[in-house]
Amino acid sequence: MTGGPTLEEVVDGLPLVDHHVHGVLAGDVDAAAFELLLTESDRVGPPGVSPWDSQIGFAVRRWCAPVLGLEPHASPAAYLARRGDLGADAVNRMLLGASGVRRYLVDTGYRGDELHGVAGMREVSGCDVREIVRLEAVAEALASGGVGAAAFPERYREALDTATADAAGLKSIVAYRYGLDFDPEPPSRRDVVAAAGEWLRHVDGGAEPRVSEPVLLRALIWAGVERGLPLQFHVGFGDPDLDLRRCDPLHLNGFLRRTADRQVPILLLHNYPFHRNAGFLAATFPHVWFDVGLATMYAGARAAAVVAESLELAPFGKVLFSSDAWGLAELHHLGAVCWRRGMAKTLRSFVDDGECSEVDAVRVARAVGADNAMRVYFGR
Amino acid sequence: MTGGPTLEEVVDGLPLVDHHVHGVLAGDVDAAAFELLLTESDRVGPPGVSPWDSQIGFAVRRWCAPVLGLEPHASPAAYLARRGDLGADAVNRMLLGASGVRRYLVDTGYRGDELHGVAGMREVSGCDVREIVRLEAVAEALASGGVGAAAFPERYREALDTATADAAGLKSIVAYRYGLDFDPEPPSRRDVVAAAGEWLRHVDGGAEPRVSEPVLLRALIWAGVERGLPLQFHVGFGDPDLDLRRCDPLHLNGFLRRTADRQVPILLLHNYPFHRNAGFLAATFPHVWFDVGLATMYAGARAAAVVAESLELAPFGKVLFSSDAWGLAELHHLGAVCWRRGMAKTLRSFVDDGECSEVDAVRVARAVGADNAMRVYFGR
Amino acid sequence: MTGGPTLEEVVDGLPLVDHHVHGVLAGDVDAAAFELLLTESDRVGPPGVSPWDSQIGFAVRRWCAPVLGLEPHASPAAYLARRGDLGADAVNRMLLGASGVRRYLVDTGYRGDELHGVAGMREVSGCDVREIVRLEAVAEALASGGVGAAAFPERYREALDTATADAAGLKSIVAYRYGLDFDPEPPSRRDVVAAAGEWLRHVDGGAEPRVSEPVLLRALIWAGVERGLPLQFHVGFGDPDLDLRRCDPLHLNGFLRRTADRQVPILLLHNYPFHRNAGFLAATFPHVWFDVGLATMYAGARAAAVVAESLELAPFGKVLFSSDAWGLAELHHLGAVCWRRGMAKTLRSFVDDGECSEVDAVRVARAVGADNAMRVYFGR
Repeated sequence: MTGGPTLEEVVDGLPLVDHHVHGVLAGDVDAAAFELLLTESDRVGPPGVSPWDSQIGFAVRRWCAPVLGLEPHASPAAYLARRGDLGADAVNRMLLGASGVRRYLVDTGYRGDELHGVAGMREVSGCDVREIVRLEAVAEALASGGVGAAAFPERYREALDTATADAAGLKSIVAYRYGLDFDPEPPSRRDVVAAAGEWLRHVDGGAEPRVSEPVLLRALIWAGVERGLPLQFHVGFGDPDLDLRRCDPLHLNGFLRRTADRQVPILLLHNYPFHRNAGFLAATFPHVWFDVGLATMYAGARAAAVVAESLELAPFGKVLFSSDAWGLAELHHLGAVCWRRGMAKTLRSFVDDGECSEVDAVRVARAVGADNAMRVYFGR
Repeated sequence: MTGGPTLEEVVDGLPLVDHHVHGVLAGDVDAAAFELLLTESDRVGPPGVSPWDSQIGFAVRRWCAPVLGLEPHASPAAYLARRGDLGADAVNRMLLGASGVRRYLVDTGYRGDELHGVAGMREVSGCDVREIVRLEAVAEALASGGVGAAAFPERYREALDTATADAAGLKSIVAYRYGLDFDPEPPSRRDVVAAAGEWLRHVDGGAEPRVSEPVLLRALIWAGVERGLPLQFHVGFGDPDLDLRRCDPLHLNGFLRRTADRQVPILLLHNYPFHRNAGFLAATFPHVWFDVGLATMYAGARAAAVVAESLELAPFGKVLFSSDAWGLAELHHLGAVCWRRGMAKTLRSFVDDGECSEVDAVRVARAVGADNAMRVYFGR
Repeated sequence: MTGGPTLEEVVDGLPLVDHHVHGVLAGDVDAAAFELLLTESDRVGPPGVSPWDSQIGFAVRRWCAPVLGLEPHASPAAYLARRGDLGADAVNRMLLGASGVRRYLVDTGYRGDELHGVAGMREVSGCDVREIVRLEAVAEALASGGVGAAAFPERYREALDTATADAAGLKSIVAYRYGLDFDPEPPSRRDVVAAAGEWLRHVDGGAEPRVSEPVLLRALIWAGVERGLPLQFHVGFGDPDLDLRRCDPLHLNGFLRRTADRQVPILLLHNYPFHRNAGFLAATFPHVWFDVGLATMYAGARAAAVVAESLELAPFGKVLFSSDAWGLAELHHLGAVCWRRGMAKTLRSFVDDGECSEVDAVRVARAVGADNAMRVYFGR
């Protein structure tokens, strides 16, 4: 490859499409808040246990510190001091800028009011930003605004149309609200109206409008399928309020079988520790794609192992990049850095072992890092 | 090891016993058919997704192209053109010949009429070839030929005896037809006759004679156990018409417990992504062996990772080689190549790390590649 | 790091805390007994299959042989001859001494009468030794001694207090007796008394006092939670009398949720092949720790892969070292050796890849090898 860039150079410079991400926090955070934002857990650890002493903590010190002008492996205290001196806005711009992401598909449905939204992310990152709309958030807004049970199916479809007029895709968090082992058949209209009636009575009575009833969750999913936009599913690990047993993508088998001819791309997010199962599904079903987002950065120095395991059964056209970063620009940065390093190391091993050419390896990197997402979401 | 062959030389030259494989296609295939045969999926991918851009597609270009006289990493078009020029028969002979397999145990039960059978495989490969008989295929042939429900148990046993007079083993595809989570107890004769009655009424009424009723499937399995030949089970990933959740070998726990004293070797095929679970079972039950066939070649450049994970808990005497190739001689070739490369790389890392001697590593390779299968199937 | 010890030197010399281990056999064993003790299976393999030809068999020859004055990779016959010449007591002292473990937490509840107990282990190893008490063993001793059902809850609590007066922790083997998919709610007193009544009637009638009824098993677990000592759970692979499907730590989700605010450390033992799931739980729940004991030594040359997979999601403060050795001092030795080698190799790869500093890597090794256990069990 005389003269051309190496695999590593290509991967380092790849303008990434982060197809599943949240906004960054606009304001400053103190040390305790930073620690909590650094973990998917919702509690601080016991004495002697700190997220700083974890793969992602080490990765912040290794890869974010230099972006803020510190030495690699700077101490947590030094890092936080420097972050405070710079201020959140500068830190956001530096870390997002250095990540080399060119396009974000932002899931605005989780505590989105605390974060930069689509416009804010556009401004702070200078990237193309499009929205991913959560099916459940649209239903909950509808319930809060007042709707009758009998009209719920139609009103939900209208609300979904409105909410997604400018969206790039949809997302279901049925994994959190129930589990992926939901009944794969579409619910009957009668059942949906009945379930909506019960739910809306509770909401009208002052309850939090949180959808968790499986008939309703299924109704939203099938309305999403009808809507025709790419449909993401949370799969595998995430916040503590899920039962990981029920987040194995293999539970989706029946649903994927029933939607295989619908021309709706299904995107399985995260998947760890079930990412090989997701690879099987992506290899089996033409309309299924997957990523190992979130896990890549939480695995830190082990990102290459996770990435490599995602490059087994599935065609390379079926694997995507995402960070699933939320709040801290460090996470947005590390999502990209850990993926780049993991991908470059994995592909380099293939080339060094004589299993594939460097030209092909570069092509795989471009596909996973950007091209596959552009094709699935934007048809190009 | 002055003078002796290296580990790599031994592994490269090992005359393999492929204990689970299907025949090759006698005739030529066009580009579209080749792509479909290259994947376990039953459909062509969406735009931008091709089996050529997958581990196995890369492996064809890397390892089969040179056998046909092309450069490594030849383009798909060049490969198919060359394949067409040579013709299927020459390609079959070249790829099978170069694979270094010396003995095939051929599962003739899946679309066997489209492929070279036992005699054809013997002729085209020059290898020793023996048959593995599918339990379900024998039952379905019996039903097609006409049989009464009351006599079904005896007639099935007779048919099985006849079908296996010259066979090396049996195979159950209960994983496809129901799941490995079948009731581990043998069904009662009364239940079998009742289930057979219902099934045979449908067959007599013109239905496809496909066994999928769990009582019947269990009856076939226990008849297989009585027959006393080595008994293979499809486990883990394969064609799209399985529910992978129900193909975890751990579901077999109760059945393995009940058959542990029957002197019938049970062979768990494929197992990916549950191969570590299979290793646990092989370590636990004296009568259980397993392989990582199919996955080895579909993982391509990642074959070493899969092979290495199969060499953890189980004694090395419990691990076998197979390809599970079907139709394309490329798959027969890659099954062997990917296993050899994965095995050599894994064992070399053990030796380089100072964990085992090269002499012992060579012994492990011989055991897994050939000796274990010879002992299980042929008692030598 | 001029002048300081390298990562490898630190890991090699680390005084380990083995937080889950059993005693060693005081007496000599013959070749057949040695083979059986070398495997978690309860039967000798079929012809051609020997535990000597497995990862752990290779590891004995590689790492224990030199401790007994033999060349690495000595033959099994030479090893056993040497072992016989030295005698069990000398072998125990040599292997335990060379292991570099400084503290054992001994589970005395499994065939403890065949082994050196706490005092014996103290004497033969020269280490600090503390006891871990099995919840089930205390209940079974109580039943054997005679107790009325109505008083069982109180009498069990008293017996547990007495049995644990000097203990470092508790252990539940509900994984063996029922499965980890037990009802996560504490059972009612009424249900416990009823279940105790039925059980005690059987015991009084001469039955083995083995607790396997789920209400009783849950009663013991919740009594353990009340007792407030660190509480270990067998998870994942082990002896053949478990159903591995039901030993996935993810089944504990509901129980962990209900105990998260109880200030009782929960320690998930072994976990293989579900160790990534355990890492998720340790990352999610502040009161959960885990190890990859037993698997580390049974994986032998593959120990680094298993160790590395345990260093992904969970903070490094949540991972512990254990051997789960039973009977053979070889296992106690290999538990330490395989962990040291796996840990050093894994951490070295992080440092070589530029992902963490050598200073941080050393800190992780100390934490996992000793410091975390000291904090959890001894508050320091």
